[in-house]
Amino acid sequence: MLTTNPFDDDKLREECGIFGVSGAEGAAAMVALGLHALQHRGQEAAGITSFDGRMFHTHRAMGHVAGNFDRDETIRPLHGTTACGHVRYSTTGETSLRNVQPLYAELATGGFAIAHNGNISNAMRLRRDLVRRGAIFQSTSDTEVIIHLVATSSYRTLIDRFIDALKQVEGAYSLICMTPEGMIACRDPLGIRPLVMGKLGDAIIFASESVALDVVGADYVRDVQPGELVIVKGKDIQSHSPFAPQAARPCIFEYVYFSRPDSISQNRSVYSVRKAIGAQLAIEAPVEADLVVPVPDSGVPAAIGYAQESGIPFELGIIRSHYVGRTFIQPSAEVRHLGVKLKHNANKDLIAGKRVVLIDDSIVRGTTSLKIVQMMRDAGAKEVHLRIASPPTRHSCFYGVDTPEREKLLASKLDVEGMTGFIHCDSLAFVSIDGLYKALGEQDRSSDKPGYCDACFTGDYPTTLTDQDELAPPADQFALLEERVS
Amino acid sequence: MLTTNPFDDDKLREECGIFGVSGAEGAAAMVALGLHALQHRGQEAAGITSFDGRMFHTHRAMGHVAGNFDRDETIRPLHGTTACGHVRYSTTGETSLRNVQPLYAELATGGFAIAHNGNISNAMRLRRDLVRRGAIFQSTSDTEVIIHLVATSSYRTLIDRFIDALKQVEGAYSLICMTPEGMIACRDPLGIRPLVMGKLGDAIIFASESVALDVVGADYVRDVQPGELVIVKGKDIQSHSPFAPQAARPCIFEYVYFSRPDSISQNRSVYSVRKAIGAQLAIEAPVEADLVVPVPDSGVPAAIGYAQESGIPFELGIIRSHYVGRTFIQPSAEVRHLGVKLKHNANKDLIAGKRVVLIDDSIVRGTTSLKIVQMMRDAGAKEVHLRIASPPTRHSCFYGVDTPEREKLLASKLDVEGMTGFIHCDSLAFVSIDGLYKALGEQDRSSDKPGYCDACFTGDYPTTLTDQDELAPPADQFALLEERVS
Amino acid sequence: MLTTNPFDDDKLREECGIFGVSGAEGAAAMVALGLHALQHRGQEAAGITSFDGRMFHTHRAMGHVAGNFDRDETIRPLHGTTACGHVRYSTTGETSLRNVQPLYAELATGGFAIAHNGNISNAMRLRRDLVRRGAIFQSTSDTEVIIHLVATSSYRTLIDRFIDALKQVEGAYSLICMTPEGMIACRDPLGIRPLVMGKLGDAIIFASESVALDVVGADYVRDVQPGELVIVKGKDIQSHSPFAPQAARPCIFEYVYFSRPDSISQNRSVYSVRKAIGAQLAIEAPVEADLVVPVPDSGVPAAIGYAQESGIPFELGIIRSHYVGRTFIQPSAEVRHLGVKLKHNANKDLIAGKRVVLIDDSIVRGTTSLKIVQMMRDAGAKEVHLRIASPPTRHSCFYGVDTPEREKLLASKLDVEGMTGFIHCDSLAFVSIDGLYKALGEQDRSSDKPGYCDACFTGDYPTTLTDQDELAPPADQFALLEERVS
Amino acid sequence: MLTTNPFDDDKLREECGIFGVSGAEGAAAMVALGLHALQHRGQEAAGITSFDGRMFHTHRAMGHVAGNFDRDETIRPLHGTTACGHVRYSTTGETSLRNVQPLYAELATGGFAIAHNGNISNAMRLRRDLVRRGAIFQSTSDTEVIIHLVATSSYRTLIDRFIDALKQVEGAYSLICMTPEGMIACRDPLGIRPLVMGKLGDAIIFASESVALDVVGADYVRDVQPGELVIVKGKDIQSHSPFAPQAARPCIFEYVYFSRPDSISQNRSVYSVRKAIGAQLAIEAPVEADLVVPVPDSGVPAAIGYAQESGIPFELGIIRSHYVGRTFIQPSAEVRHLGVKLKHNANKDLIAGKRVVLIDDSIVRGTTSLKIVQMMRDAGAKEVHLRIASPPTRHSCFYGVDTPEREKLLASKLDVEGMTGFIHCDSLAFVSIDGLYKALGEQDRSSDKPGYCDACFTGDYPTTLTDQDELAPPADQFALLEERVS
Repeated sequence: MLTTNPFDDDKLREECGIFGVSGAEGAAAMVALGLHALQHRGQEAAGITSFDGRMFHTHRAMGHVAGNFDRDETIRPLHGTTACGHVRYSTTGETSLRNVQPLYAELATGGFAIAHNGNISNAMRLRRDLVRRGAIFQSTSDTEVIIHLVATSSYRTLIDRFIDALKQVEGAYSLICMTPEGMIACRDPLGIRPLVMGKLGDAIIFASESVALDVVGADYVRDVQPGELVIVKGKDIQSHSPFAPQAARPCIFEYVYFSRPDSISQNRSVYSVRKAIGAQLAIEAPVEADLVVPVPDSGVPAAIGYAQESGIPFELGIIRSHYVGRTFIQPSAEVRHLGVKLKHNANKDLIAGKRVVLIDDSIVRGTTSLKIVQMMRDAGAKEVHLRIASPPTRHSCFYGVDTPEREKLLASKLDVEGMTGFIHCDSLAFVSIDGLYKALGEQDRSSDKPGYCDACFTGDYPTTLTDQDELAPPADQFALLEERVS
Repeated sequence: MLTTNPFDDDKLREECGIFGVSGAEGAAAMVALGLHALQHRGQEAAGITSFDGRMFHTHRAMGHVAGNFDRDETIRPLHGTTACGHVRYSTTGETSLRNVQPLYAELATGGFAIAHNGNISNAMRLRRDLVRRGAIFQSTSDTEVIIHLVATSSYRTLIDRFIDALKQVEGAYSLICMTPEGMIACRDPLGIRPLVMGKLGDAIIFASESVALDVVGADYVRDVQPGELVIVKGKDIQSHSPFAPQAARPCIFEYVYFSRPDSISQNRSVYSVRKAIGAQLAIEAPVEADLVVPVPDSGVPAAIGYAQESGIPFELGIIRSHYVGRTFIQPSAEVRHLGVKLKHNANKDLIAGKRVVLIDDSIVRGTTSLKIVQMMRDAGAKEVHLRIASPPTRHSCFYGVDTPEREKLLASKLDVEGMTGFIHCDSLAFVSIDGLYKALGEQDRSSDKPGYCDACFTGDYPTTLTDQDELAPPADQFALLEERVS
Repeated sequence: MLTTNPFDDDKLREECGIFGVSGAEGAAAMVALGLHALQHRGQEAAGITSFDGRMFHTHRAMGHVAGNFDRDETIRPLHGTTACGHVRYSTTGETSLRNVQPLYAELATGGFAIAHNGNISNAMRLRRDLVRRGAIFQSTSDTEVIIHLVATSSYRTLIDRFIDALKQVEGAYSLICMTPEGMIACRDPLGIRPLVMGKLGDAIIFASESVALDVVGADYVRDVQPGELVIVKGKDIQSHSPFAPQAARPCIFEYVYFSRPDSISQNRSVYSVRKAIGAQLAIEAPVEADLVVPVPDSGVPAAIGYAQESGIPFELGIIRSHYVGRTFIQPSAEVRHLGVKLKHNANKDLIAGKRVVLIDDSIVRGTTSLKIVQMMRDAGAKEVHLRIASPPTRHSCFYGVDTPEREKLLASKLDVEGMTGFIHCDSLAFVSIDGLYKALGEQDRSSDKPGYCDACFTGDYPTTLTDQDELAPPADQFALLEERVS
Repeated sequence: MLTTNPFDDDKLREECGIFGVSGAEGAAAMVALGLHALQHRGQEAAGITSFDGRMFHTHRAMGHVAGNFDRDETIRPLHGTTACGHVRYSTTGETSLRNVQPLYAELATGGFAIAHNGNISNAMRLRRDLVRRGAIFQSTSDTEVIIHLVATSSYRTLIDRFIDALKQVEGAYSLICMTPEGMIACRDPLGIRPLVMGKLGDAIIFASESVALDVVGADYVRDVQPGELVIVKGKDIQSHSPFAPQAARPCIFEYVYFSRPDSISQNRSVYSVRKAIGAQLAIEAPVEADLVVPVPDSGVPAAIGYAQESGIPFELGIIRSHYVGRTFIQPSAEVRHLGVKLKHNANKDLIAGKRVVLIDDSIVRGTTSLKIVQMMRDAGAKEVHLRIASPPTRHSCFYGVDTPEREKLLASKLDVEGMTGFIHCDSLAFVSIDGLYKALGEQDRSSDKPGYCDACFTGDYPTTLTDQDELAPPADQFALLEERVS
């Protein structure tokens, strides 16, 4: 059982984090540490594959990195100086081990392991074609499509086959691959999902976020560029750009919520961006109040920014438990009616009789906002003003983020006034889309050339969405039930 | 395996939390919720005992409440409208199930269950006497002494026997007991450990801290008074005061660190006290700096207080991972030399080039302080000034708190200048003992009648310490190894 | 889960087996092997206690010896050259770990561990008296009474206290005890349950059956005598006889079913006795037939005796699966109507058209006999004659054997003719009680001085039965639910 | 951990058993029962796949059927009226779940599940070719080759593709396959491995042995013929014979050891054949002796035959424990020198001073024979004559039986005299190959047209052995480590 999920149920969820090391003793142990630092990007399963020059070794498990990859007896058999790993949150129902990455296949060119952050938006169509040609899939993951495209490519070398495969896929992908000849890291042409490169001594490291470099003591070198393939063979590092150049569109929500505040992305501190959004929000939507209270923990940087800009004191009006398990919800029917506050508790003495500005990073379904506003009122707050450090989330993401169906997004159904009523707050405001770009150091958003993927706010998707446009067939007919080594 | 320990290794550890419910449907489920809110007081083991009017039912487990008490199949068999529970951190080596509370015994007067927060300081001597008279102990817990004293008392009624037993024990105890006739809650004559009483409809609730009342939606009624026995039989509540009156000496460290910030103790908000200590510290030990940075999470309220008093901005200069497991430390030898930052990571962009005031609640061994100061310097801090929201911790606790031996307490070996050198900070200051009393709304500490137990700071122990003064015999000759239901 | 139970559900079950070693390196490992050889005497739980000269170490577990005591990491911590162990089958509902033996207590005289085969028939009354005097019981086992009697005895030495205790208990007991000074083995004055002594080099070994000596390579020395205490202190062996001499009454059912056929008891081979019973049965109840078929495995020796005496060929007409798990019964409702033959299968080709003599050791409820006769008929048997190698089982055992309540014993309700009808066999015969004594080399049974405890056949109980005669009070009010080390 | 392995370590091991049901409610539950009856054919892993008309459902597990497939919650999700299963013993090192059958693939023609008993003797070569063409294997099992041959066949219908695939494979295979259209059962052209067909109401059942039909109450209909494909679609049953006719060569060792004695194979009772071999052995190799003693349990039928033919009494001279676990071998170093007799124990009283004829079914390495002869001598046997109910085992099997390398087979290194010396028996004899054929009701073995595959005795392999003749490449580069659902 997963015992810790500090993220609210009512958040968008990043589906994956990836981490790779080439050229270090104890590579798998470093990957375990790196994945631990990326745990917030996927808490459902984790896997590590290593290569020792002769054999590939894989360990995958449902659950957190800690608890699955923190014992010597697990890490030691993952021999070799090259390793990569993956943490995963899955959107669809199938959560069995066979979908846990890295995926591995034995190709005519040798072993091939792959770890993927993102989502292939034409995976269904490609899969159907491959099955017709005799391919047998071992998972329901979109990522496996890439492997079969590589396996059946008519090119000769692995790199040529790999590029051939990538040219057929559409959507978002940051990839770390391992072959007997070396490690390949790449990002889709728009650079939708992040991927950074670091260095520790002679070892080269790739990671979804720079915090994972910090945890192993590595230095941030640069972002892998949109459309770039970096190939590491021993100490030789090559950069390829096989795709036609395009204007990059990295995911803007990484700054709003996904990335850890201590990450640096494209030379920007995520913490500073969030404080800037908070400050911008104080300018765009000021209010007379006694306290600025963050919804912990994701609202804290924006709340500090709001407090500093507005001069209203920052206070911990909501205390979050450190021990909240994902499944610890009303253990029995008798107590289900109680106002259970396992995750958050109001700091009553502080709140009673006060006008409170609540700061949260985003609103998805609105259910948590509703409860937290009520908690403030129960604690005696005189007024509750809710300020959101992103624009209204109105559209689904098809690039590797778990979004509810559109009709469940509060902002797709209601305008700000409607939402204010639903949430029962005294006032509600979101930062504007232009304000968000400003906090990122840009001008107002350019609708021609927006600079970021902001489709969840604007509906402006930067790629075609083949599977969405077709009637998607069922993935397969197979339910692999729980399996056990008894 | 425990997967979450957000508390630093270098903190004092409260040994226990207790929670009891009398007169509610689903009492055991409420106890599970209450214990969850008290999890910070003991993460090693948990237990719940219920009484259904005819039978007592107990479930005990090593590990957290979540994961052990969050499933219907565990809670459902704990029938009855009366239940109590216990979370435990043990100081001594023996961590087997037989020491996990509530303890239970079948006495001539009927079943008797007991949950204890505190420490009996003459338990060894009492145990030796009881064994000589034929008593057979089933645990190595000091608490079991109380049960045998009750069992062998020459008084007739259970209450008389219980009071007879308590008059023989010395030290700190907050107790919740269950008998076929009702629930008994009591506190030692000095009230060293906390215990509050709450109400939810007709149900009476006892808990170590008020946050545990919040989580079940109950209202805080009052603290159980030092030396008071509260007996609940159905809707009848009686209060007894069998001891000679003494000036109370509640533990002052509950305000410094143990209690959750959202708890109310003796009508004082713990959060407000901590902020007041921070403000007092800003007055006593001001410094020119750019940022006030809390050591998360326990330093946050004092840091807010310091920042507000000093006018220096409050910033999250250290980011703490939500996913830190107790055992996730360098999984293999190869990476042990890396500066692993699994728990904390510096917010580099913010820190670089700045003068930082670091706020922590206390220093025990000093090992964590050393690392965190170094982390600030590695992140580029120009100056690091450490401010501690308690006086130097110089003495061991014998009242239910896990303290290292005196010689391991940094402040028992070094003066402030020595500690500054050890920790490598630019300056170091502790709040004064009088300042601490002031933050609690008192005058300076009165050495005649101090108002709190502050022995860890002052060495002024409010009781005799019989076992400490004798040469303690070994607890017993028995190692009960891990047992399994296969 | 227990995966193997080769014993039929419709058999009497021995409740326990015990094994002790004094003076051997790796004593606990030898105990594990010895208990494994005694596994048929109790499959529900097992435990081992060792003493290393300073400390006692215990490991107990629900389930079989194999699976719980076959790994170095379990055995290694059981330090010392003295150890004893216990396998258990419990009659009453309470099967939690706290009742698994050896039981241990820390007495004023030092540690005391005890393993018991038998049943104290005045345990309830003694327990009630002890609780009144302040004793706290940690189990619901009758054995714990002995420990409290020792603890509270007014004698000074452990041996005097132990004898004082035994003089107060009534019923059947073979005991192996461990104290810091040495090992004590003893048998009740009637010698109802077995206990043998063996030797391996300088080590002294005690075991319920001689097969357990074989498995560790030890030599059988002699039976511990009824009413004898053997005290082993290093190489010194003392024999005490503290009780008034009585004519011995060892359990006759050990020869019929409980003991393994390769055991030697009182200088008699169990296998030879069983063959002799079979031969006697052929004399007392001959039949014209084509095949003698044993009900495997317990009927095999008597069937060989019957075949040799009668000249009718012995054949395996029923094949028993080696893989039958206790719980593997009709995994779902859909197949419950099938004639499931997981345990036994008829050897159809052999049986079809034949007159079969079926040999079984005993009939308890008769349910298995009914099914097996039907199985023979389904396989085409022309006639089925059932011969039972013991007299009708008409009375419950109160000396440590699990017997159903009297009214469930087929022979207590029906005469032979009635049983023949119930079982649907062509003829049914039991060996006579005198025939049974003859097979044991005795004359006919003497009703004055029977030589064995045969109460299950005759109702002639050799002791008073205090608890049976009183209205037994409930054992206690406490349900200790499953406990876990997570 | 597997807790039961009643088969000696020194036996050949059948690698698999298969069982399929078409057209029955609760098909998966019936498969669980059938697999349980086939457990002796493979104890390492088991799996069941069901089809509910829309979806396939699979559960696979390491370990026994009991313990993995005996709970409703495991069986219930295996919906549908069609199901097949597999028990497995693997020869090579790779024992991970990915090799546990039934294997499943999603083909262009729909889902396809396969359970295989046997061994493809050109699997390596086929696999290498398939990988070159882009196939990605998910296991290291030879069986997966068949699936890829089906997937990439240029024929259109599944049946045509399947036949196309089978025509490319060489070796031994009894298969049960499931497709959305129906169940296919087939046997290789020589019928090396067994497969029978049964009927229960309207349901059609396939099983490796007839005992598995007995356990579900089904009737034996006939053997699936060598080279036959039986296709079951609802109530429609078709038989195809796509291969050129060949003289059948079923495995003769099924009669010697593999099959359960209560199985009927090709209309012969396995028990009767074994008795006939024993009788033939008494004729070919008589000896003056007092007792005929079987090595339990596999030697029992031949011993009964030998005793009946020779007139020497049959006796249980060796008692076998019911509780022997595979891993329960000398739990610690201290007792490793003891003559541990966990599995077998001599019935000393019977053996002492006697001339013993020991009957065993076969000799592989000879290590067990050596120990058992010694055990007889230690028990006081005057003479020990060993008689083996099969010819000397001199050659490896490449058709799905686990044989040690040739050089480890005792009979490949020594003649009978040499073996007699190695085993330390007074005399040793094997039944002749012609005697074995006679016991099967045949004339002497015809070397032109032998009637059975007896390659393990004669070296006369009925197929080419492609992979043996080539230098076998390593299966793959991948070590899938233990995986967990935590």
